[in-house]
Amino acid sequence: MNMLDIIRKKRDQAELNHEEIRFWIEGYTQGRIPDYQSAAMLMAIYLRGLSKNETVELTLAMRDSGLKLDLSDIEGIKADKHSTGGVGDKTTLIVAPILAAAGLKVAKMSGRSLGFTGGTIDKLESINGFRVGLNRQEFIEQLNHCGVALMGQTAELAPADKLLYALRDATATVESTPLIAASIMSKKLAVGADVLVLDVKYGSGAFFKTIEAANEAAALMVEIGQTAGQKAAAIISSMEQPLGRAVGNALEVAEAWQTLCCQGPDDLRELSLDLAAEAIVLGDLSPDKALARAKAQELLDKGLARAKFIEMVKAQGGDSDFSHLPQAALRIPFTAPKSGYICALHANIVGRAALALGAGRLVKEAIIDHSAGILLQHKVGDYVQEGECIAMLHGNDNNRLQEANALMARSVFIETTAPPNLIS
Amino acid sequence: MNMLDIIRKKRDQAELNHEEIRFWIEGYTQGRIPDYQSAAMLMAIYLRGLSKNETVELTLAMRDSGLKLDLSDIEGIKADKHSTGGVGDKTTLIVAPILAAAGLKVAKMSGRSLGFTGGTIDKLESINGFRVGLNRQEFIEQLNHCGVALMGQTAELAPADKLLYALRDATATVESTPLIAASIMSKKLAVGADVLVLDVKYGSGAFFKTIEAANEAAALMVEIGQTAGQKAAAIISSMEQPLGRAVGNALEVAEAWQTLCCQGPDDLRELSLDLAAEAIVLGDLSPDKALARAKAQELLDKGLARAKFIEMVKAQGGDSDFSHLPQAALRIPFTAPKSGYICALHANIVGRAALALGAGRLVKEAIIDHSAGILLQHKVGDYVQEGECIAMLHGNDNNRLQEANALMARSVFIETTAPPNLIS
Repeated sequence: MNMLDIIRKKRDQAELNHEEIRFWIEGYTQGRIPDYQSAAMLMAIYLRGLSKNETVELTLAMRDSGLKLDLSDIEGIKADKHSTGGVGDKTTLIVAPILAAAGLKVAKMSGRSLGFTGGTIDKLESINGFRVGLNRQEFIEQLNHCGVALMGQTAELAPADKLLYALRDATATVESTPLIAASIMSKKLAVGADVLVLDVKYGSGAFFKTIEAANEAAALMVEIGQTAGQKAAAIISSMEQPLGRAVGNALEVAEAWQTLCCQGPDDLRELSLDLAAEAIVLGDLSPDKALARAKAQELLDKGLARAKFIEMVKAQGGDSDFSHLPQAALRIPFTAPKSGYICALHANIVGRAALALGAGRLVKEAIIDHSAGILLQHKVGDYVQEGECIAMLHGNDNNRLQEANALMARSVFIETTAPPNLIS
Repeated sequence: MNMLDIIRKKRDQAELNHEEIRFWIEGYTQGRIPDYQSAAMLMAIYLRGLSKNETVELTLAMRDSGLKLDLSDIEGIKADKHSTGGVGDKTTLIVAPILAAAGLKVAKMSGRSLGFTGGTIDKLESINGFRVGLNRQEFIEQLNHCGVALMGQTAELAPADKLLYALRDATATVESTPLIAASIMSKKLAVGADVLVLDVKYGSGAFFKTIEAANEAAALMVEIGQTAGQKAAAIISSMEQPLGRAVGNALEVAEAWQTLCCQGPDDLRELSLDLAAEAIVLGDLSPDKALARAKAQELLDKGLARAKFIEMVKAQGGDSDFSHLPQAALRIPFTAPKSGYICALHANIVGRAALALGAGRLVKEAIIDHSAGILLQHKVGDYVQEGECIAMLHGNDNNRLQEANALMARSVFIETTAPPNLIS
């Protein structure tokens, strides 16, 4: 077997088998197959596609390219959650404690991804004292004791994915549904939870721009999970405007806490309950989605999820008095340029504004300002008066605040009539 | 401008412009664009194709990636000839002196290509004393004086082609008509003759397996030449069985000399005259093909081409007594396994037999045995008796001769009825 024949086969639209895909992924991870051959292969895959069988085989080969997490010492049903990413997406902070309160073991390991705002790990690090660097024993013990542990990625899970992702990024082969699905699922399968709930987002602030693309990817990821013996389900959710009202690490923790206290924004609460319900059904803790949702709601409304969150924060050394969360020194309002209905509040541009304030990173060396971010006072469908505050910008540098303010002006579209989905 | 956008554009089937193609080729040749980006680009081109405009732009960018030959000191019309390669193809040794005798200046520079048998330069080196390493002044003077000079490639013409060819070879992107056409024509345009005649071969022993593929490539190359200001024409010729009867360097020189003496095989003579006629028309030395062919035939039959060949060999230091050509120490006959008509004599397998004897090289470091090769006594359509000699194998190593003999047995197909094209 040689790589040239494998590239040729994919190029000519033949289906690759188990051995060929393993030969590629193992060879590439171990440095025997050069970047340029993998690059040609990726473009052939981008243009020719992968069958479901090939996608599953690719995912499993990537999963097996490095160490896997051994969760066998954890009692009970292990649950994991993944979001394809969005602006203001803090659902993990709400879903994880709900599931732990329901009796699942939420073993979530997150990488420090690049983006407009920090990942879950960055958000948690805005809590004074919170330790994301648990060792294996601490992780296992916390899961057995508290039912939820959110930690940074230590062992390199699915190293083939890291290599392939960097190469895709440099060869215009990122936007391929099978490659995206294999990338996400290889890491999730390397963690190896029993159940996985996926939040696949579409819209201006999401990786997938259309609901069709999100649906396609979601179906493929669920199928990969099921084929690999993981119970998986996906929710498709909109990311046209930010989720909730807070964008930025400490602001998002505060909003998650409010939501756990039943004082958060509806869209965030609803999506969190939907995701939790899917995992509860997958974990066989409820016979159907409606009952699962009722259960999730009960755990939230009765404060059991909130208690789990506090328990987790304390277990990981964090200060559970969230009034101590870092606060930005400067705040300026972004005001409505005219009166009317907010018809769009493009999440991607709000995200760039948050990034300008220091809430995110585009290179892994960048230092995040946990206090920086944006608090939306209004969202799509609201009527605003000219000069009224639409969002409060939190930051520590006046120039950055001005830049964010200018970006916000480009994110908002105000019309004299309400947007159609709110009229109907 | 950046390479990622250019790859993306081709990936998405948009047409690349002059600047984008230059950006790629210049950047790649100068090492600014990495192999893996060029690899992705090549696969995108392989699968998406290139328009005629893009192919011309690519060819010119590759031509301009290095030095060009300056032929301005040569008086008269400069002619060049290129074959896409075949087994037993020694037409250059016949066409070049015919054209010189007709008054064209045949400035041919050849690389040492890899293949079943040596290239033109290797064939000429089987002539004792023949110098292929002329310097520029010698080359120009010989062309002005004798009208023909056949030399090895000194300056690196079209270095982008060398880089891209190696990368295509390693990424399964060789068999792309626009990439093949650009590769050949970039080198031909870097030499910069006024007229170019192309011999585009199809069949078992050729790069192109079908006549359709050869036609397509020929049309594209002629169009590229014309667009770039070079008069070009192409002949499509069969390479199902070897051309002529001799395969191997010294054997082919001897056969070329016989053909120049009007004692060579018909197929070789006819193809050589056809190619010469095309160049004579392109060089405006005859108003039409029929007159040009008559002129070529006259130059051959009256011995003027033969005289030019002798003049060239002497000018380049070679021994013009061809009875001194190197001879192999061992000869064994390959005999007919049964009686009947030879229906096929697959050129690719005969080529492998010649390679086994030492007549060619697959890596550039390999040393060629100039005396080794195959002399066919029979060709397709001939009736042979069981045990009759079909070919004489010339070599210097008994094991190699046995290997070649076994390969020959796989090249020949004998049937009880004559092949259809000979019945008709």
